[in-house]
Amino acid sequence: MRTSAFARTPEPPYYAVVFTSSRTSADNGYDQMAARMAELASRQPGFLGMESVRDAKGIGITVSYWATLEAITDWKANVEHVAAQQMGKRVWYEHYELRIARVERAYAKPAG
Amino acid sequence: MRTSAFARTPEPPYYAVVFTSSRTSADNGYDQMAARMAELASRQPGFLGMESVRDAKGIGITVSYWATLEAITDWKANVEHVAAQQMGKRVWYEHYELRIARVERAYAKPAG
Repeated sequence: MRTSAFARTPEPPYYAVVFTSSRTSADNGYDQMAARMAELASRQPGFLGMESVRDAKGIGITVSYWATLEAITDWKANVEHVAAQQMGKRVWYEHYELRIARVERAYAKPAG
Repeated sequence: MRTSAFARTPEPPYYAVVFTSSRTSADNGYDQMAARMAELASRQPGFLGMESVRDAKGIGITVSYWATLEAITDWKANVEHVAAQQMGKRVWYEHYELRIARVERAYAKPAG
């Protein structure tokens, strides 16, 4: 899966799903689920990459990148992912914000 | 400044700047700069909020939200911010990716 902290995305436009969350203290298989979802997502058509960070206080930001809005809709409807979303709402996340955005410009260091 | 881990953003559309970075081991006032930039950004016209996480390995994702592309351009050109960007390139960041995106949909738990 993610072998680098950085997604190697193509030239814009493409789409980003920005998921900011605070974890509850419940474990219930969270780490296994997160690894499984990263693996499943990476096999979805239109998946471009993922960047994910969680700090010591349990606040996390995961950004996944997708070729099209349809690819995001398909991933949202993936059966295993739907089950994980439900566990997320009920057990794992105290609060989250999910935003879907169209990437229009991108810069990097070292340059692309 | 940021009193919560979550930005309280309005209904889309609005803009997001997604900044993913890996820190060098150099300190040189990084924390003070980061706090100062968060404060300055929050006073810019069109600033809507910021979410920022860095993990123990030094990988960070900061997402700032803006009303318009013009607001992002103005913030990029802020004199103190330009100096911080130059220090970032030279000293603080080993690698970064910066993406500017138009937020089109948003969801939350608890629901907005």
